[in-house]
Amino acid sequence: MPQTTIAIQGERGSFSEEAATRLMGPNVRVLPKETFPAIFQSVAERESRYCLAPIENTLAGSIYENYDLLLEHDLHIVAEVNLRIVHNLIAFPGTTMENLRQVYSHPVALAQCSRFFKRHPKVEKIPFYDTAGSVKMLAERKIPGAAAIASHIAALVYDGKILQKHLEDHQENYTRFLQLARTSSIPSDANKVSIAFSTRNAPGALFRCLSVFALRDIDLTKMESRPVRGRPWEYFFYLDFAGNVRDKKCQKALDHLAEVTDILRVLGCYKAGKK
Amino acid sequence: MPQTTIAIQGERGSFSEEAATRLMGPNVRVLPKETFPAIFQSVAERESRYCLAPIENTLAGSIYENYDLLLEHDLHIVAEVNLRIVHNLIAFPGTTMENLRQVYSHPVALAQCSRFFKRHPKVEKIPFYDTAGSVKMLAERKIPGAAAIASHIAALVYDGKILQKHLEDHQENYTRFLQLARTSSIPSDANKVSIAFSTRNAPGALFRCLSVFALRDIDLTKMESRPVRGRPWEYFFYLDFAGNVRDKKCQKALDHLAEVTDILRVLGCYKAGKK
Repeated sequence: MPQTTIAIQGERGSFSEEAATRLMGPNVRVLPKETFPAIFQSVAERESRYCLAPIENTLAGSIYENYDLLLEHDLHIVAEVNLRIVHNLIAFPGTTMENLRQVYSHPVALAQCSRFFKRHPKVEKIPFYDTAGSVKMLAERKIPGAAAIASHIAALVYDGKILQKHLEDHQENYTRFLQLARTSSIPSDANKVSIAFSTRNAPGALFRCLSVFALRDIDLTKMESRPVRGRPWEYFFYLDFAGNVRDKKCQKALDHLAEVTDILRVLGCYKAGKK
Repeated sequence: MPQTTIAIQGERGSFSEEAATRLMGPNVRVLPKETFPAIFQSVAERESRYCLAPIENTLAGSIYENYDLLLEHDLHIVAEVNLRIVHNLIAFPGTTMENLRQVYSHPVALAQCSRFFKRHPKVEKIPFYDTAGSVKMLAERKIPGAAAIASHIAALVYDGKILQKHLEDHQENYTRFLQLARTSSIPSDANKVSIAFSTRNAPGALFRCLSVFALRDIDLTKMESRPVRGRPWEYFFYLDFAGNVRDKKCQKALDHLAEVTDILRVLGCYKAGKK
């Protein structure tokens, strides 16, 4: 097993592969899996050294399945990357902007390029299971007049041609990915911590938890909650905050938090991705 | 338009209809719609007086699409109900427990009845788009040896027979529904408030917001966050808390909160559903 294998969800050429390349360079070996549980499993079973899990998108919100998988597995966040989602129109010989009649992609990607379709009313949107998968299908079937919307990496992987860049309506479309490993390793420039905790359902419990950060001027960057199974109306909270677990201030905040929570887990300490 | 029309998502006989009946009695007129946006639209356009939106499930978590729709529309929460999800095996003449070979239902319902399928290894699970929809289909096609998993209301609506009750693995499976109307009406026994707010992304901003409740010993029952579109890495927060907007304590907390938030909206004040 090469050290640089990283499991991703989706076909080769997906936005996950683009994010993996951004994080680990163009020579990284990506291992495509069909589902999110399968990428966590791949690391847990030592098939891959890492996996890359999308955790939130600035338009669609958190990817809750991966929040749940963070608690189900015992993996550690070692890095993150914020990928700007740029949609490209990719085609194969036989298709040009002039004879374009059909565009295949994942329904979310098609919806995010509504202005392009307004400008080209004769072009039919055809929903497909995956962005990169639609490029792969066209690479095999070479349908004249058909193109796909996907990451520029999909054009590289399947040897397609980019007919047009930046089809997306909103430029403010980012997906945040977490790189996960079996063992924790904290880089010297780590400046962000992710934790998960649960509290007894007492009045003011969450406020007390947040106070351990506010008292120390520690900046929270994200908060999420998910249900505790079998304990209706109780929740796990996920917090990201600025800091390094090796700093005194951060250690004291976590010690203090442990006093007021039932369960507390540090999911990782890593360098914040560029925004 | 009768005053008691309530738009629900899904086919007649769905868990939404069961919840509507629980809330408004057996004579309520339910208006089935295919999507969640359509039930909000139906109230906004005065086709229905109410709609009933599932907002969270104790196993699967929040129904985020409906959180977003609460902010997109200007409807008011007037009541809530917590429905225990009981899965029933429903069949038509020609099918008995003895000749049972196929069970149709929504994939989530099939997954929630895994013990039943372990006890009946010869029975095939067949995914269908909707729980009540699978009963409706069997009522029309009467496939021998086939049954469906759905709410007991589906058996009533489509005149099916309940072969077995309580197929669900987890008894702690509840869905919380919100009843929404165009105008707010606060019952005299209202004891719960739902709000949404956003803050500038300053350190300690969320802590300051929660402090307005903690200072006054007001109990928070749920907190959720969703992204603000076009402002990457900023969030709307949704809070439920115990209280009545007519009480001084609650009014002061909301006044105080308005000072430390950019946007603040009261989504409703209503009687908490039985847990």
